Amino acid sequence: MEALINVRPCPDGNGVIILDQTQLPGALTYLELREKEAMFEAIKNLRVRGAPAIGIFAAYALAALARQLPEKDFFPAFTALAAWLSTARPTAVNLSWACRRMYSVARSFHGEHSALLAALAREAQAIYDEDAAMCYKIAENGLSLLSDGSGILTHCNAGPLATSRYGTALGPLLLGRERGMQFHVFADETRPLLQGARLTAFELDRAGIDVTLICDNMASLVMQQGKIQVVLVGCDRVAANGDAANKIGTSGVAILAKYYGIPFYVLGPSSTIDLHTPSGKEIQIELRDPEEIRSLHYQSPMAPPVKCYNPAFDVTDHSLITAIITEKGILYPPFEEKLRNLFSE
Amino acid sequence: MEALINVRPCPDGNGVIILDQTQLPGALTYLELREKEAMFEAIKNLRVRGAPAIGIFAAYALAALARQLPEKDFFPAFTALAAWLSTARPTAVNLSWACRRMYSVARSFHGEHSALLAALAREAQAIYDEDAAMCYKIAENGLSLLSDGSGILTHCNAGPLATSRYGTALGPLLLGRERGMQFHVFADETRPLLQGARLTAFELDRAGIDVTLICDNMASLVMQQGKIQVVLVGCDRVAANGDAANKIGTSGVAILAKYYGIPFYVLGPSSTIDLHTPSGKEIQIELRDPEEIRSLHYQSPMAPPVKCYNPAFDVTDHSLITAIITEKGILYPPFEEKLRNLFSE
Repeated sequence: MEALINVRPCPDGNGVIILDQTQLPGALTYLELREKEAMFEAIKNLRVRGAPAIGIFAAYALAALARQLPEKDFFPAFTALAAWLSTARPTAVNLSWACRRMYSVARSFHGEHSALLAALAREAQAIYDEDAAMCYKIAENGLSLLSDGSGILTHCNAGPLATSRYGTALGPLLLGRERGMQFHVFADETRPLLQGARLTAFELDRAGIDVTLICDNMASLVMQQGKIQVVLVGCDRVAANGDAANKIGTSGVAILAKYYGIPFYVLGPSSTIDLHTPSGKEIQIELRDPEEIRSLHYQSPMAPPVKCYNPAFDVTDHSLITAIITEKGILYPPFEEKLRNLFSE
Repeated sequence: MEALINVRPCPDGNGVIILDQTQLPGALTYLELREKEAMFEAIKNLRVRGAPAIGIFAAYALAALARQLPEKDFFPAFTALAAWLSTARPTAVNLSWACRRMYSVARSFHGEHSALLAALAREAQAIYDEDAAMCYKIAENGLSLLSDGSGILTHCNAGPLATSRYGTALGPLLLGRERGMQFHVFADETRPLLQGARLTAFELDRAGIDVTLICDNMASLVMQQGKIQVVLVGCDRVAANGDAANKIGTSGVAILAKYYGIPFYVLGPSSTIDLHTPSGKEIQIELRDPEEIRSLHYQSPMAPPVKCYNPAFDVTDHSLITAIITEKGILYPPFEEKLRNLFSE
């Protein structure tokens, strides 16, 4: 089966091609984005989503948009562009991280304008390549904790669609499957945007993994029934003390896992770790359009016109996390010093 | 605002009129059911739902259907009918309880056939009236535990639509509102059938109560944010040890409440207590059509055609329950002896 291409530069370098994830699983729609407004919208409205994929996309987008800027006064215009694009979603640290990396290339560059544009394109490609290598290592590290035949619960989507390839939380499952192992995966549908139903169930099923879709509120029962041996989730930002921001509902899954004595693993690239954020309390929780709750895909009315509260993330307290798995290895609590050491090595 | 009529006998006594709850909040559709198959279907497909309302409906239905049975060999035919109707949904104890009450009237009756039919109609009305009186007492008992201005989380729907009037879990809120109090209620939408979104948000908003709809997976965050002081849920069956079966997801909410130190109250009529069931382990969990998860209201495809697991209930361990509130009072742990005493008084 052909691999899904998630994010890649247009062949002419002037835009970015993405698989529109809001159309899955109904349609495989590829969008060619060449205008900055369309790129901003694609991040904001989750056409491209998953922290690493957003970073990769933003880097390709800035490399493409740089070619549209006038050579004269390039640097302030590019700086403003990078700063603006990084506001498309507030929580994912990879977005601002990738924008900063691209900005740094531009700031420190001395030479011909065409060489600068090439350097920006190379930097974006490097961000992609590094992510692919990281995902593979995360998958290997995660897989070392799993047994063939295990029941796995996952929340939201942290698969290849969310990254370059393999994904983070789903990487160990995909790598294990390639090596002939089988897992029994329960995928939370992950309301309101149903990334678990639309994306995770789709990706795992496509990879030949035994996947069962459940509603978010069924996680407690399947754990109680002994169907789950391990929980694997991704993360959008890990604070210096190990608190982890991830898709709304993750903290609830972590509390359930603790109650039922099930290991709860957070998987992500080390770029997701933000030592400048002391704890989860300082992580801003993105609030989204209440209409996402009331009307599924803005079509079927699912509720009366009452007030809705629609946070996109929550923070899982570090005390609930069994281990944080990055490309650099597996960290067990206490996390604070080990997370710091990860970057001082 | 006119009160919602949930279940009532047809004026001619030959059928039952219900508000079709599967059409809410989009349409207020009343159905006149005169055939036993349509009555069975209404229970099975949740057109009438909520344990007490199902019991009331079944009683009215049996009183109406009794009039269609031939006088000759009435008793075996009525017995078979009552036994059959009680299989429409397996978990709610009120259904079989109401069917048994109607059966007992028929079994012990001696007299004219027309008098028997009248006795059955009176019994059904008595079941309704008793429920209305019970709900009022449950509401009063529950209200004694609430403070004006509190934040309340509720799951699924245990309001007037699920009972005769006032409801169980929502009763304290509605009674408090009538007495000038105000609460800030967070209603879990309650996937897959969205009773929280469609019914609870609808009922509370209609009653002038401040209600905010959230997805089920947002409960942990609103608790973490200090927005919830009390959790109120209904119950479909309480076992002898206090384990409580209720809508899928309730056990997860209870675990979250325990983790965050929030009181978790289970409200229901004493008819919901089943001393013949020693613990939650013996409660059969109804499994429903996976298509309910994949396609909302069988319309929009929400997932690829993968396997879905769709349990309708889960069991909340008694150790997670702060108190069980019935019309007879408030029971605190340990529950076992107190539940037994409730019926020996």
